Amino acid sequence: MKVLLIGASGTIGKAIANELEKEHEIIRAGRNGADVSVDNTSVESIKNMYQQVGKVDAVVNAAGGANFASVSELTPELNEKGIESKLKGQINLVLLGLDYVNDGGSFTLTTGVMMDDPIPLGSSAAMANGGVKAFVKASSIEMPRGIRINSVSPNIVQESWSRLGKFFAGFDPVPVERVARAYKKSVDGGQTGQNYEVY
Amino acid sequence: MKVLLIGASGTIGKAIANELEKEHEIIRAGRNGADVSVDNTSVESIKNMYQQVGKVDAVVNAAGGANFASVSELTPELNEKGIESKLKGQINLVLLGLDYVNDGGSFTLTTGVMMDDPIPLGSSAAMANGGVKAFVKASSIEMPRGIRINSVSPNIVQESWSRLGKFFAGFDPVPVERVARAYKKSVDGGQTGQNYEVY
Repeated sequence: MKVLLIGASGTIGKAIANELEKEHEIIRAGRNGADVSVDNTSVESIKNMYQQVGKVDAVVNAAGGANFASVSELTPELNEKGIESKLKGQINLVLLGLDYVNDGGSFTLTTGVMMDDPIPLGSSAAMANGGVKAFVKASSIEMPRGIRINSVSPNIVQESWSRLGKFFAGFDPVPVERVARAYKKSVDGGQTGQNYEVY
Repeated sequence: MKVLLIGASGTIGKAIANELEKEHEIIRAGRNGADVSVDNTSVESIKNMYQQVGKVDAVVNAAGGANFASVSELTPELNEKGIESKLKGQINLVLLGLDYVNDGGSFTLTTGVMMDDPIPLGSSAAMANGGVKAFVKASSIEMPRGIRINSVSPNIVQESWSRLGKFFAGFDPVPVERVARAYKKSVDGGQTGQNYEVY
């Protein structure tokens, strides 16, 4: 299978690549992607990426960010990063990528534990996660040509704990390899419309 | 209590007003609002509304739309209505309204059944609903001054069945008065971070 992996250089992206490259050809994309560059907040950039890459069997996205701010400090402007990157960035990968995914292929997006187990400062990221999860479930019922769509909702991973653990008081971080296996389940399995919680 | 109701002239908005005006003072807002005009896709318009209305005890929103399109026909541009109106329109009512809500007051937003029980053409609306639900849950843990936040997720209502029933094959529509009571539970009750499903 030919797998387009966006966000390939992040902690989770690298683990996904390690897991999937055992059996598949990986095209690594990102802001400074090894194989192709893409800015997921730009419709033009996403279109250019797909034109460069051509047809694939799976699109896996591990990119997308949001600002961390308490709800009292969150402004419409600060909330835009979550809207443009983590939410629309992922959904536009699907809307603009449908024609580039082969029959029976798949999309796998990324949500996150914060929508289910909220943390302080996390409401913008949670918003984006919830939007992606609902889009995945709803769009799965009318995907053309047997194309499947799922999302993976990772807990905070052990590999990011020293940097991000202070935001996740009392959470039990998971090994990033466990998270990567959920992406493999989406790509190589048969389910659709699912949000795989790796908590 | 002084309740600011946005979307007061719609099917659900009118039922909310009927339910809440038994005990509360209602300020009716909307695109052509009886008391105050607001366009929820405009940050400036939302700010102007709050400046005109001043302090309130509860903000209830029943406004917000999204385009209906199959995922194959949905474009980033068509998806913008759901992003700007049903998602950001509601969240910006909270972010810009916090300082206008009295201690112990509340926000009540609107999601919808499509995120839980998907229908064809509904992925953009489902996305917005899911984003609002997750924002409500996450932001509730850090609302200042005892302010609560909930959402109501209505099924298709009997009063809209003749117009919209064709999109909801096999659904069991609910009386709009049942939906209105969920808003009352949010405004007059004590819970926070909830999404009341009226299915």
